[in-house]
Amino acid sequence: MIKIDLSGVLKFTGILPRSDAKAADERSAQLPMSGWMSWPREITRREIDAITEAGRTIARSSQALVVLGAGGSSLGARALTDALFRDGGVPDILFGGDNLSGEYMSRLLKKLESKDFSVVVTSKTGSTTETLATLRIFLKLLRERYGAEALSRLYVTTGAGPSALRRFAEEKGCALFDIPREIGGRYSVLTASGLLTAAAGGLDITALIDGAVREMESNAEAAWDYAAARQSLYRGGFKTELFASFEPALGSFGDWWRQLYGESEGKEGRGIFPAPLHYTGDLHSMGQYVQEGPRDLFETIVSLGEAGGDVAIPGNGEFDDGFDFLTGRSLNSVNEIALGAVKNTHISGGVPVIEIRAPKLDESSLGALMYFFERACASSAILSGVTPFEQPGVEAYKKQMFQMLKD
Amino acid sequence: MIKIDLSGVLKFTGILPRSDAKAADERSAQLPMSGWMSWPREITRREIDAITEAGRTIARSSQALVVLGAGGSSLGARALTDALFRDGGVPDILFGGDNLSGEYMSRLLKKLESKDFSVVVTSKTGSTTETLATLRIFLKLLRERYGAEALSRLYVTTGAGPSALRRFAEEKGCALFDIPREIGGRYSVLTASGLLTAAAGGLDITALIDGAVREMESNAEAAWDYAAARQSLYRGGFKTELFASFEPALGSFGDWWRQLYGESEGKEGRGIFPAPLHYTGDLHSMGQYVQEGPRDLFETIVSLGEAGGDVAIPGNGEFDDGFDFLTGRSLNSVNEIALGAVKNTHISGGVPVIEIRAPKLDESSLGALMYFFERACASSAILSGVTPFEQPGVEAYKKQMFQMLKD
Repeated sequence: MIKIDLSGVLKFTGILPRSDAKAADERSAQLPMSGWMSWPREITRREIDAITEAGRTIARSSQALVVLGAGGSSLGARALTDALFRDGGVPDILFGGDNLSGEYMSRLLKKLESKDFSVVVTSKTGSTTETLATLRIFLKLLRERYGAEALSRLYVTTGAGPSALRRFAEEKGCALFDIPREIGGRYSVLTASGLLTAAAGGLDITALIDGAVREMESNAEAAWDYAAARQSLYRGGFKTELFASFEPALGSFGDWWRQLYGESEGKEGRGIFPAPLHYTGDLHSMGQYVQEGPRDLFETIVSLGEAGGDVAIPGNGEFDDGFDFLTGRSLNSVNEIALGAVKNTHISGGVPVIEIRAPKLDESSLGALMYFFERACASSAILSGVTPFEQPGVEAYKKQMFQMLKD
Repeated sequence: MIKIDLSGVLKFTGILPRSDAKAADERSAQLPMSGWMSWPREITRREIDAITEAGRTIARSSQALVVLGAGGSSLGARALTDALFRDGGVPDILFGGDNLSGEYMSRLLKKLESKDFSVVVTSKTGSTTETLATLRIFLKLLRERYGAEALSRLYVTTGAGPSALRRFAEEKGCALFDIPREIGGRYSVLTASGLLTAAAGGLDITALIDGAVREMESNAEAAWDYAAARQSLYRGGFKTELFASFEPALGSFGDWWRQLYGESEGKEGRGIFPAPLHYTGDLHSMGQYVQEGPRDLFETIVSLGEAGGDVAIPGNGEFDDGFDFLTGRSLNSVNEIALGAVKNTHISGGVPVIEIRAPKLDESSLGALMYFFERACASSAILSGVTPFEQPGVEAYKKQMFQMLKD
């Protein structure tokens, strides 16, 4: 279960009553596109088994998996695999379909030269420009490499509604998975959108869903408290939220969080600016700013009760480096002390700190964390007075781009 | 030469006179720690050759290079190698020494299990906690793996002043490179701090320095204009700077830029909040916020005249995907159109846009870009009324951490 510590906020501001966030949560359940709320209980065992089996087939047949998708069709899969896919696993997971760089594509194609590969393409609408343009290149390469067997290496995840991509997959008998109509991209990590890549990377997606179910059924208060605290801080003039973890494996989790919050809240001239950082590394780059820059920042730290693999710090057998007080300690124990020191000094420096603690670096905790942040996000956006499940501003540049391309 | 386009700013604000930025630039040359300003002309051919040769030795003898460093001792090397180190090169470059995660270390050690490796350790003070703690683990591993030859695989880059790390390297005859006393970490990318890893990755560091020299000697106006525009925007209420490129290879360049600006400017309650993004990918996550969130953002886009490798978009031989207007175009040409569309729509949406254009994705352009951003940063900080070459706030958490560790 996810725990929240708000003691680092109360010094700076009172917090909206939990009942306000609860009411916002209940309101969000009434909105269109709130299908993610009950989803962990609705996904069927049959679907989980089918995704698991497809993941196994990919891992058996492929040295590399190319995952094509953008935004919500990519960030969840990345967050999960970066967190839990230990090196040395098979296949290599390579992401694409979220940019238009020829250089990026050249490097990606080079990595596939001597590797058997499969392709996962994810697009809820079936019409994401970068993803579909990139898919063309990989469809051609699949045909060149695998001939009549090409489409057996293509896995399509797309919205339940009609699209050319979906029709194609149905007609050709490609492996096809749904993103439910009532779940938007940034809330889709616990659908096939995130699960298929996770399964190919060997993650236990049953445990991931089970973790989300347990969080959903038993722990709404923590999410309400996070929503209430953020909005209280925002009203108090804290405009930017730093989102940090001391675990590099959670680096991409911050990018997933950024889309969830930025896209849900950033509208009508409002919205907390979401800024992921990676500690302790970024203390060496942004630490100065956090400690002494403008006092309109607050910080959310995601921590882990058990932090995964660990390594003891040996003595320095070569020279006296001045760090003998570290000898024999484990890295994770020092990391935990660094976390405490950073919290204290940031709070002393005028930065409110929220700590969110998950049990450990595993599937169950990740599923719980993701559900926690989704629920809190919807409530927070509603408390802020905006609709969490729309994104009217993302189409603007595409319209102009298509016009320019067609001219 | 680096070019700057400020037309996307003038709609929002007047710009401070260039002469103000020029005066700030001249003032910064008088400050302690401004050695980076003349450095590209001062680094000797002999030093460049020695670094190049060390890089070749590493590449010949190692399948993997472990680069240990934090902040300015890591971000420059990452920016250079991510930009220009094409996949398939040897060695694999693995970064560490900037975190205290046992999980990260476990994964790193696993990657080295069956690979010959060398270690570059970079620390200006010779006393960076994460770096020195991690170095202990690799000193031990080097001894286990290579016995009496262990230290021939260790490359030390550290400040010219006395430190235990330096003395050790001198006494044992390790390869030893200097970071000049008058150059701070975040301005050190064009010293051995960035160059050694770049050379090991096969980059032409002579071209990198030559690019910086040409920029230094002939193009101060562009840097002054960037400094003046940023500070004019900041005074006009634009508090956060998005820093984006449409080239994923420049992703880590944004992290280098963030430290440079955040640590130089974020003090005394002031400072533009630096926020790197990666386009077009992050348009699918932060695009909504940029288009319709609070209007206190401005955006700096780094673009390339020639964008490196390219790939043509073929027709879709499998189904009608609705993108026939893309057929036969190159990815980079579409990417360039996307850039124009994004600029226009962000400006229309109320976000001032600065475009900074480098000739191409190569060493000469990267050297020029880095010098450009360093010079503009110093001027900008001085215009903002703070001292660019200090970082008094970064020690706070370390003091508390050491106290906790020693207790």
